[in-house]
Amino acid sequence: MSSPANPAPTIGVFDSGFGGLTVLRALIDRMPGARFAFIGDTARLPYGSKSRRTIARYAVESAQFLVREQGAEFLVIACNTASALALDAIQDAVPVPVLGVIEPGASAARAASRTGDVLVIATDATVQSHAYAEACRAQGMRALEKACPLLVPLVEEGWTSHPVTAEVIGIYLDELNTEAAAHNLHADTLVLGCTHYPLLRPLIERVIARVGPSGMQVIDSAEAAAEAAVRLFNGRVAPTATGTAQPTEIRCFATDSVEKFERLGSRFLGRPVGHVELVDLGG
Amino acid sequence: MSSPANPAPTIGVFDSGFGGLTVLRALIDRMPGARFAFIGDTARLPYGSKSRRTIARYAVESAQFLVREQGAEFLVIACNTASALALDAIQDAVPVPVLGVIEPGASAARAASRTGDVLVIATDATVQSHAYAEACRAQGMRALEKACPLLVPLVEEGWTSHPVTAEVIGIYLDELNTEAAAHNLHADTLVLGCTHYPLLRPLIERVIARVGPSGMQVIDSAEAAAEAAVRLFNGRVAPTATGTAQPTEIRCFATDSVEKFERLGSRFLGRPVGHVELVDLGG
Repeated sequence: MSSPANPAPTIGVFDSGFGGLTVLRALIDRMPGARFAFIGDTARLPYGSKSRRTIARYAVESAQFLVREQGAEFLVIACNTASALALDAIQDAVPVPVLGVIEPGASAARAASRTGDVLVIATDATVQSHAYAEACRAQGMRALEKACPLLVPLVEEGWTSHPVTAEVIGIYLDELNTEAAAHNLHADTLVLGCTHYPLLRPLIERVIARVGPSGMQVIDSAEAAAEAAVRLFNGRVAPTATGTAQPTEIRCFATDSVEKFERLGSRFLGRPVGHVELVDLGG
Repeated sequence: MSSPANPAPTIGVFDSGFGGLTVLRALIDRMPGARFAFIGDTARLPYGSKSRRTIARYAVESAQFLVREQGAEFLVIACNTASALALDAIQDAVPVPVLGVIEPGASAARAASRTGDVLVIATDATVQSHAYAEACRAQGMRALEKACPLLVPLVEEGWTSHPVTAEVIGIYLDELNTEAAAHNLHADTLVLGCTHYPLLRPLIERVIARVGPSGMQVIDSAEAAAEAAVRLFNGRVAPTATGTAQPTEIRCFATDSVEKFERLGSRFLGRPVGHVELVDLGG
């Protein structure tokens, strides 16, 4: 039951850019009436090509902004690279629960896969961390990871259903299938290990239908993280089925490129992002 | 005449990443025996999607490192984005001559073009600054600029002669030609306004031969900047035709991703980059 004296808690959502808006979108769908504060560290993106030390320092600054200045009581790290490389550092730095996207992605793959062999596509840094392979191994699965560095720029160019993008996806998946065969993997599940990739999901599914293997299921780590967040935060968000439901509240912040955030962000959020506030984290 | 008491001056070269190594390569070819200190601000790349304020702050920190800590007596800003958005700020911040890549690129286009109409391809931020258009207009030319955000990631993926890259270049050039026709431009010169693009030059020339217009000349702003640097620094570098010639000395620094710099840098420099030192500019 929510009231002015007991408002819905604020859920902080963090990404290096605005790709994490796909996670925010999935959260909003599942938690209407909650309050969300999203920060994209756009001044320092992309994290995907940076070192663990640098990524941890940047991510902690954003997490502290959400907790200290926006009053976030939960944090969702809507960035695969930061989840892979900085989750412990973030959890050490803030006194609230922190959820990443890697574990939920691996759990969803576990639920979906019959063979226990999965493929993961992600950024360079996420792949080099082997965070998905480790999370999958901890759940008794085998995972093969592949960096697909062209997919983020293709999404940002808006070519989400372009023939060139289909060709690039086809090349990456062919290479991945060849490598999987060489490792004697019988993969039946593909994890989208980057928050930009949900926008490519329809195209990826079309390419899989062409290059195989047939029956491959696609797991979206943004959706999986939102599901996990709902379970974790269960009962702590405002009810919506009653006449007293609060409207969903969304505040967006960026460390730079507010214009680009506002222009491209709606594609990821699936609705206008509205006004984005510029914040300076000192980087 | 060079001697231990009067050594060759150090030329500082700065880029947001390692694309500027194409400028360093062109400088080395023209100034054997000189001393070079190169810094790539890899912790904060790419500059192409960031704001003028942020780019200027970052670029000034790298320029000060080259002058104060490496003793650079000249600076070459081997980054189109920083040249477009931060040249004045850098010149104000250091007491040595500073050369960017925009003016030399425009001058080389002026020398090459018969119609006075030129096309420029570059990153988002360089295009949005309209620095090339202004530099061309100041020399009595008309310029049409186009952002080609997929080309840098394609170069970094190593797809410099890949059919997908040819297709992407073809799409960008088709759009550029259509827009040029709509503006009644008779362009005969294409300026490569990004230091990554020289690696695509052979492919770009092949695509132009296919999509036209015929007779289009390609100007490489890295080469143009190196030519301008030679004229500016004329006589201040060590002679090489004598027995006392000094070997060329190259020191490379990066703010992050030293491994990636060492791995990819040699493609841009045309020789091994050797050991790259990590420096912390506090960002």
